[in-house]
Amino acid sequence: LIVAVVGVGLIGGSVGMAARSRLGAHVRGVDPGSATRALERGAIDEACTDLASALRGADAAVVAVPVDALPGVLDDVLAVAGEDCVVTDVGSAKRAIVNGRDDPRFVGGHPLAGAEAAGVEHARADLFDGATWYLTPTRATSGVLYERLHRLLVALGARPAALDAEAHDRIMATVSHLPHVLANVLVGQAAGALAGEAPPAVGPSFRDATRVAGANPPLWSGIYAANRDALGEALDGAIAALRQVREDLRAGSDLADWQARAARERAALLEDRFGGPLVELRAAVPNRPGVVADLALALGRAGINISDMALAPSVDNTQGVVALWVKEGEATRAVGLVRDLGFPVSAQGAVA
Amino acid sequence: LIVAVVGVGLIGGSVGMAARSRLGAHVRGVDPGSATRALERGAIDEACTDLASALRGADAAVVAVPVDALPGVLDDVLAVAGEDCVVTDVGSAKRAIVNGRDDPRFVGGHPLAGAEAAGVEHARADLFDGATWYLTPTRATSGVLYERLHRLLVALGARPAALDAEAHDRIMATVSHLPHVLANVLVGQAAGALAGEAPPAVGPSFRDATRVAGANPPLWSGIYAANRDALGEALDGAIAALRQVREDLRAGSDLADWQARAARERAALLEDRFGGPLVELRAAVPNRPGVVADLALALGRAGINISDMALAPSVDNTQGVVALWVKEGEATRAVGLVRDLGFPVSAQGAVA
Repeated sequence: LIVAVVGVGLIGGSVGMAARSRLGAHVRGVDPGSATRALERGAIDEACTDLASALRGADAAVVAVPVDALPGVLDDVLAVAGEDCVVTDVGSAKRAIVNGRDDPRFVGGHPLAGAEAAGVEHARADLFDGATWYLTPTRATSGVLYERLHRLLVALGARPAALDAEAHDRIMATVSHLPHVLANVLVGQAAGALAGEAPPAVGPSFRDATRVAGANPPLWSGIYAANRDALGEALDGAIAALRQVREDLRAGSDLADWQARAARERAALLEDRFGGPLVELRAAVPNRPGVVADLALALGRAGINISDMALAPSVDNTQGVVALWVKEGEATRAVGLVRDLGFPVSAQGAVA
Repeated sequence: LIVAVVGVGLIGGSVGMAARSRLGAHVRGVDPGSATRALERGAIDEACTDLASALRGADAAVVAVPVDALPGVLDDVLAVAGEDCVVTDVGSAKRAIVNGRDDPRFVGGHPLAGAEAAGVEHARADLFDGATWYLTPTRATSGVLYERLHRLLVALGARPAALDAEAHDRIMATVSHLPHVLANVLVGQAAGALAGEAPPAVGPSFRDATRVAGANPPLWSGIYAANRDALGEALDGAIAALRQVREDLRAGSDLADWQARAARERAALLEDRFGGPLVELRAAVPNRPGVVADLALALGRAGINISDMALAPSVDNTQGVVALWVKEGEATRAVGLVRDLGFPVSAQGAVA
């Protein structure tokens, strides 16, 4: 099996490592910036300086270059790839890439992995273990080549899931790209509101909501641009929803029903994900080294998994609140364990 | 010292406990719903059924009823309070409460504490330790009474901070109320986009951004209404910012500068808070009981404090990414410790 990896960063490098170690594939890499390091790290067997040599006789080609370079490189790869070579990409938006590329060899792809770092130095063979890898085949896609790609991804540890490109982009726009835009808007508003004021008591809701604000500017500006259409629609939807809230406020309407609907919607979205409802526990703790360990150890020893966790220090950093999400059936036991440690704790009735 | 607490829930009950234990105050409580439980818990010395008996000879009155009942109860309290009694409230919006109440005895207040639970059963004497307690005096406020309230709050463990009511509401609207609205909007958008689709791979950015979606509907609809004006302005600002992004996307403008500005703004907002820059570490970990404990223990033993933490499981819940924020000067050491545990980890160059 010969695999060509075009663009050997975190994703491309991890594809190479996994393909080598799990499939015994021969991996060729093309990347003027990192091919040498990729060779040193064992991510590829061979560094090629041109696409034609990398693609010669290849069974599969994975194009993992930055999104702004993707369309051009993808066309170059399709131009030199053999008849029997499946070609995929790893871009985070699919509509613009897939439309107009009705090539039987091409399947758009998007692995949901690797957000924690960038660069081939962080590549690892197990990056895709258990990760969803979206594929966006079209009616032009060759069934044989699609199946080969699917098997390749399974062998890399991923879980391929087919989706049409429109739905993929719409989903990513709302669950990933819009949150990033809103985080930026929020810090912009706060920076404006606080101009000249004393440092604010930034609460946990602000910290959580802005955690991704300003993430990796070159990467994210490329992602916004690549998913321009679907993100634009998501923005229109968000603007309309905010205007509605604005009107309701002005009219003095009660927003309790709206708030309750949001609780149900979030619960439904996250329940699907974990296969069951979660309960949020909130514990007040002194903010010192070791406290999180005490909490996590107590639950861990009892076999209770912490599905999600957020720690919010108080303003002066002496006290804090830890929010923990655990399975509903384990909530009572978890509350008891936290209480035994001497920390005030309560379960937040409603969910996740 | 006689303190009257009107509304004995989490906040009122904690005021009572702290005033009794730390000041030896005699605390009278008025609350048809919870005065009996408050007596049992030792939050008050005496349960009164009418305001006049509670306020007789009182040195200070703390009105801690739900925001929608606040204006009426506050006026009732001011009507029966003595000339020499300082009266304060704990509402989360101040402009509407303070305007038109030019009474020398009244000082608007807002403690930033108690978000983790509700009800007198969760009241505790140390709830306010280290917590900012905003006070919004006006030119009508008596200096002597303001000073008495200030000393009382310090004795309760809080850190009083004076702010004008307009600035208070503007700040709370942007750092607290707007994040809640945006979280609701985000889950609404996602619920719409996903209608009929398979469960999405909800990413960590979505989880973080929607953590407070649908929080306590009766409480939060009251908070939105109470801070209607300032929240309306914050919404206008957010809508304008989103439209700008929408236009930039349509025009094909590069959003990298905008993204980078958000990174600087968030860093500035959070640096102020911790007195120094933080570095985000991201570690890939198996999602099983004990992992968070291992991480937190390793850092805790080395004396490294985790300022903030977020845990995002992967789609199938077998693997996850832990984000940790630590002081810049401790980041290298922290990375080494996490790596020693066998978890891939990287520091996210830029900050917080």
